[in-house]
Amino acid sequence: MQKLTRSQRLIHIMKILVERPGELIPLRFLTDRFDAAKSTISEDLALVKEALESGGSGRVATHAGAIGGVQYWPVPSAEEVQASLAELCQMLGDPGRILPGGFVYMTDILTDPAWIARIGEIIAARFHAAAPDVVLTVETKGIPLALMVARALGVPMVMARREGRVTEGAAFSIHYISGSSRRISTMTVGLRALKRDSRVLIVDDFMKAGATARGMIDLVTELGASVAGVGIFVATAEPAKKRIDDYVSLLTLVNVDEDERSVVIRPALDS
Amino acid sequence: MQKLTRSQRLIHIMKILVERPGELIPLRFLTDRFDAAKSTISEDLALVKEALESGGSGRVATHAGAIGGVQYWPVPSAEEVQASLAELCQMLGDPGRILPGGFVYMTDILTDPAWIARIGEIIAARFHAAAPDVVLTVETKGIPLALMVARALGVPMVMARREGRVTEGAAFSIHYISGSSRRISTMTVGLRALKRDSRVLIVDDFMKAGATARGMIDLVTELGASVAGVGIFVATAEPAKKRIDDYVSLLTLVNVDEDERSVVIRPALDS
Repeated sequence: MQKLTRSQRLIHIMKILVERPGELIPLRFLTDRFDAAKSTISEDLALVKEALESGGSGRVATHAGAIGGVQYWPVPSAEEVQASLAELCQMLGDPGRILPGGFVYMTDILTDPAWIARIGEIIAARFHAAAPDVVLTVETKGIPLALMVARALGVPMVMARREGRVTEGAAFSIHYISGSSRRISTMTVGLRALKRDSRVLIVDDFMKAGATARGMIDLVTELGASVAGVGIFVATAEPAKKRIDDYVSLLTLVNVDEDERSVVIRPALDS
Repeated sequence: MQKLTRSQRLIHIMKILVERPGELIPLRFLTDRFDAAKSTISEDLALVKEALESGGSGRVATHAGAIGGVQYWPVPSAEEVQASLAELCQMLGDPGRILPGGFVYMTDILTDPAWIARIGEIIAARFHAAAPDVVLTVETKGIPLALMVARALGVPMVMARREGRVTEGAAFSIHYISGSSRRISTMTVGLRALKRDSRVLIVDDFMKAGATARGMIDLVTELGASVAGVGIFVATAEPAKKRIDDYVSLLTLVNVDEDERSVVIRPALDS
């Protein structure tokens, strides 16, 4: 590669960092890639760090020494979070989303790459300090969200399944009582995917009574791993008493009135 | 926001573009955000376009006029694609991945955000010209891959389910004959998610006989939508005759020998 200008290097460095959140990019990789001196790359990284952190839109950590390198995590600013949650409330509050049974259609948002990336970054930023090393969800609807939370943290995602699969290898299962139906359900996770010494961030798209989240907590603790937190996109206001005590939800679904065709939903996060 | 230097603007512009592949970012949004003249932003974008396209690592389209703006798509270079596929073959060729029944454990790769993003970009780049406006997969293992393909193209993802769900609203279902077991299976997709006039890119993580992909093609065509292509991560060499004719796979799984503990897998893409 021919020698690049500072502008060109910054463009390529930003592409690498934003594409690989949480990954430790060795300084050596960058000096080789751009045929540049370590001091030059360090100056570039200082510019990147200053621009992103002063703009409140990301965190950059540079490490000196043998494992020297740079890591980037997206951290939406307080204003970006407020704006995103307000826009989501407006979208989800549309009465056209009401489904028979008083459900609210959310699948379009949960499968929209741009929205789910943004929501994933908001949840990830809340749990950054808890230093999870894996994100767990249970199939199916929460998978895109869990993947994007994992991506923003730079850790792997694990999907628990309703049934064991031959393609997952040896598995660990628990039974749990699923919410409204009070049925006994099963949740299973491959032992190759979830290790005993993991710190697990549990993520789901929706929580009512909290039975599924409770099931995931039990799965993690029975396996001997630890829970780093529980992050939920939308939790219902009722029942106020959930089957789990400690969780973060982005939005609270206060009420759905099928007859009046109204949805009341509001941001649940303090800034 | 105070006036930024060119370096600072380039850093923020790159963050926006790489975080939102395929999205049309209005010039107006950038001039407002950076309190900069249109000509200044246009120069910045020209630098970005030149750096990324000459490096063979992305495509940038700038549009003039009333809907003026900029779009970015990740396009891995031929060398990046070759290097990624070679590394994947090495990882997947590890005999430690052999599961009972001759399956190869791939779930760690399919749920690793960094890997699945890279694989998604490779598939997306192959189908860019076909201009799909939605990516379809069927639950469960292919969902992260489909999401990342959709992300790289800047279009929504749709998950077909094995059973209809109340949370998806009115649904469209087909029956199909699933591969080895010759069982009749069902595949269902919410009508809110998949529209009749869509151009659908079908994505899955694994294909043997092609029954699931055939089912998705039938689902799309029966609904009255059109198929823009079929992209598969790993397809088996046998049976050579698949239930679908036209697909792109990244890797070919040639053989798994449980007794000899060997896996033969090779890149399937010509550069």
